[in-house]
Amino acid sequence: MFVRLWMTTELITIGPEQSVVEAQHCMQDNRIRRIPVVDAEGSLVGIVSQRDILNFLPSILDGSSSGASSLAGSTKVGDIMACTPMCVNPLTPLETVAQLMRQHKIGGMPVVDDNGILVGIITESDIFSAFMEVLGAGGDGARIEMIIGKESRALYTVMDIFKRYDIFVQAITVHHDFGENKRLLTIRVRGEELDGMIDALRRSGAQINRIQIGTEPL
Amino acid sequence: MFVRLWMTTELITIGPEQSVVEAQHCMQDNRIRRIPVVDAEGSLVGIVSQRDILNFLPSILDGSSSGASSLAGSTKVGDIMACTPMCVNPLTPLETVAQLMRQHKIGGMPVVDDNGILVGIITESDIFSAFMEVLGAGGDGARIEMIIGKESRALYTVMDIFKRYDIFVQAITVHHDFGENKRLLTIRVRGEELDGMIDALRRSGAQINRIQIGTEPL
Repeated sequence: MFVRLWMTTELITIGPEQSVVEAQHCMQDNRIRRIPVVDAEGSLVGIVSQRDILNFLPSILDGSSSGASSLAGSTKVGDIMACTPMCVNPLTPLETVAQLMRQHKIGGMPVVDDNGILVGIITESDIFSAFMEVLGAGGDGARIEMIIGKESRALYTVMDIFKRYDIFVQAITVHHDFGENKRLLTIRVRGEELDGMIDALRRSGAQINRIQIGTEPL
Repeated sequence: MFVRLWMTTELITIGPEQSVVEAQHCMQDNRIRRIPVVDAEGSLVGIVSQRDILNFLPSILDGSSSGASSLAGSTKVGDIMACTPMCVNPLTPLETVAQLMRQHKIGGMPVVDDNGILVGIITESDIFSAFMEVLGAGGDGARIEMIIGKESRALYTVMDIFKRYDIFVQAITVHHDFGENKRLLTIRVRGEELDGMIDALRRSGAQINRIQIGTEPL
């Protein structure tokens, strides 16, 4: 799971010489909240957000609002953008991006290659999509939550049963902080012999928390 | 992975009879962007967001700002709150919550029990935490990304090797849309014989994309 797989590559960008008003219209027209700023060579030079524009405008509104809009028309994106935005690489792990976004309270980051060329943008929304995928959201088959031990073999016992019943694992995640010596295993599986597999799981001592068949209960 | 494990239970709430100004101060003091509104019995009756307050104020600012603040002081939360907020249950799967938040462009949802009593709140930030956990962010050991086939046995081949080398699986996720007949398996593992295990993986034909030891490269 890394950035390249989830980033948006259909990029909307703006030049540092364009006006703040143009940036504002561009955000409204495209329903986006941030625009990477690139120079003529496609190198990232900054990022301008809805918040940057809002932060810029109020100080101007102290006075007449017509003065504000004329200043917004003449002020350049380069003057109000964040010049050294936090960037990631196409191969940055997704958990690192999630961590950075949370830590710095930012909703999206430009993705640049080793030469500083802008190649994409990754947002909270992309990270949500990735998370839904690894949790198997909307998939068919059975969603099973079960509690297993913290010893390494607990997971192998489950996998051996899946293998025996020729189960296809669509999604699998482990949550470790579930309780003392307990892990929560969430899987979405498909197979001809789901009932037999579930019986075998129960016989093995796995504590099945919940089973949902199909997408209905989601 | 379900809501109860990740929701915030230290709740900040407000009553419908309290003023908009009180709600605004409460958000500022606690650095939050939404407050569930509960009645005297603790039942959820609505939610009020920073946006609701902002949407309320500007219409008032047409005129004198002192009129606006006096009206904000006398207007009750119950008059501007969203009365039928989207809610989830403590046992709702996290992928469903992520899906709802994305679909309806909301940043957080109240969590209510079967009696309509507010028991928590779950936000984008909580979902990010959960995602980081299942991806093994910040864990030690080795983070390995490898490409495996789409046939069900491909995963079992890998698990059998882990089992043989007594590897502890800290995190495991599968990404399916990686390419034709390819899945991307991301794991974080610990063990005494990581080198032997990696050699065995390579001999088995698994295509290892990237290995990171420890947390450094994150």
